Amino acid sequence: MNKIRVAVVGYGNIGRYSIDAVNAAPDMELAGIVRRSVAAEMPAELEHVKVVSDISELGKVDVAVLCSPSRSIPEVASKILSKGISTVDSFDIHGDALMKLRSDLDELSKKHKAASIISAGWDPGSDSVVRCLLKAMAPKGITYTNFGPGMSMGHSVVAKGKKGVKDALSMTIPVGTGIHRRMVYVELEPGANFEAVKNEIKSDSYFCHDETHVMLVPSVDELKDMGHGVLIEHKGVSGKTQNQLFEFRMKINNPALTAQILVSCARAVLRQRPGAYTMPEIAPIDYLYGDREIILRGLV
Amino acid sequence: MNKIRVAVVGYGNIGRYSIDAVNAAPDMELAGIVRRSVAAEMPAELEHVKVVSDISELGKVDVAVLCSPSRSIPEVASKILSKGISTVDSFDIHGDALMKLRSDLDELSKKHKAASIISAGWDPGSDSVVRCLLKAMAPKGITYTNFGPGMSMGHSVVAKGKKGVKDALSMTIPVGTGIHRRMVYVELEPGANFEAVKNEIKSDSYFCHDETHVMLVPSVDELKDMGHGVLIEHKGVSGKTQNQLFEFRMKINNPALTAQILVSCARAVLRQRPGAYTMPEIAPIDYLYGDREIILRGLV
Repeated sequence: MNKIRVAVVGYGNIGRYSIDAVNAAPDMELAGIVRRSVAAEMPAELEHVKVVSDISELGKVDVAVLCSPSRSIPEVASKILSKGISTVDSFDIHGDALMKLRSDLDELSKKHKAASIISAGWDPGSDSVVRCLLKAMAPKGITYTNFGPGMSMGHSVVAKGKKGVKDALSMTIPVGTGIHRRMVYVELEPGANFEAVKNEIKSDSYFCHDETHVMLVPSVDELKDMGHGVLIEHKGVSGKTQNQLFEFRMKINNPALTAQILVSCARAVLRQRPGAYTMPEIAPIDYLYGDREIILRGLV
Repeated sequence: MNKIRVAVVGYGNIGRYSIDAVNAAPDMELAGIVRRSVAAEMPAELEHVKVVSDISELGKVDVAVLCSPSRSIPEVASKILSKGISTVDSFDIHGDALMKLRSDLDELSKKHKAASIISAGWDPGSDSVVRCLLKAMAPKGITYTNFGPGMSMGHSVVAKGKKGVKDALSMTIPVGTGIHRRMVYVELEPGANFEAVKNEIKSDSYFCHDETHVMLVPSVDELKDMGHGVLIEHKGVSGKTQNQLFEFRMKINNPALTAQILVSCARAVLRQRPGAYTMPEIAPIDYLYGDREIILRGLV
């Protein structure tokens, strides 16, 4: 069997866990890692891994798992798709930006006969699939998605990106009916102004819609735990029948789950016709490894 | 907009609730109902509905929702697909029979340029999709599906079908880790032998694998409540990260949910290429009504 050759682009938390997931997949092999700067300190665990600064140096690559921050995804994905290599990413900026990414990458994918699954993580991602399925089961009614308690990777990265911030951690606290409080813990560079940092964070579009508290701590590292959770609640109507009750709940290691979903999507993307897709547009069986009939016997 | 013309085949519990779901769908209209015997007592609620004994009498039909008992599905579906009309059913006999139905109907669908979604209810059906998604999120690990407490439609129909049984109700009681007890309540025809009925039920392939208790009651009707529930538990490994915890839970009116899923599948089946599919093979977005970009904005 020809194994799927996967490149991991970016070597932060999600990149590290993506390598685990690729190595655990019986039908995949790691082609290598693409980092902005290869000269940077090389961690010991990468000793036997090919690390390059341009994906073209990795030889044949079937699919690239993009583990760069969301804001760099449009550029990184476009560049790789233009080489005819399929991509998956976990772009998590909801709304217009996400729809624009889908339509831009759709055009590029078709032009270069590749495919792309965007916003593939757990939210957006598998949670979107669950919400879609619940709407098929009870079309009328309200769905609440409650996150946490847990560290939000996206929000932590944004807070960490502010001038004067040495390290940051953003905790998401569910307060019910899909409303959240954000607790942001920051460690500052010497001489940085806490009030200025606090205002920068609270006015960022990632934070300004929620109740946000920014706190100064001596060490962010001591607070870090990458556990997270979600509770999706749907109470709805099937046909004319009211009060159909649904709950989806998980308690998970956040980057490990995001990475696993990206890697499952890396398998699925190769089974799609050229174009860009979100997870609700993918047949779930495409995520799984193995003979389709054997898989189905275990599922249905 | 041309509405999807839906025929409902069979007028038992699922048939009745399917009509509700078709009437609640803004993009569908009921072409009519197909019953084995039209001369039979005509319920008042069907006064303004076309009731026929052959689907050809309903004019243009885009899709048929098959609400007949599982054991009659292979024959009924084949007959309708052969007319080039797409079908959905809730065939619930797991294993070989299901895979054979999929392959037989796949061939027929392709031949007649129609499509078919089989085993579309909540289990098999939406539960299969959830199990598939959980396997994409944490590939290694055990999944338990716990049913009930609630009335099993399929098991009740089988028990009711035994000679000498006037009415029957089979309750599914979860005893943990996917193990169930079945409590079967039967009302007998005059002169029927309870011991013989009990043995018939306990040795049927629907019951012989579970702890089954058969009880004689004066009135089954007084015990009927069509509420049901499920709890799917998955503890698994994402990449190399252990102890990822997932739960999907619902408390629902059983035939109402089955019917709603059938009707959502009736929409989806018209969006598939010719062939036969199970629910894990369908992109979840295809179940939903409306503009795809607007739906996605609400989901992802």
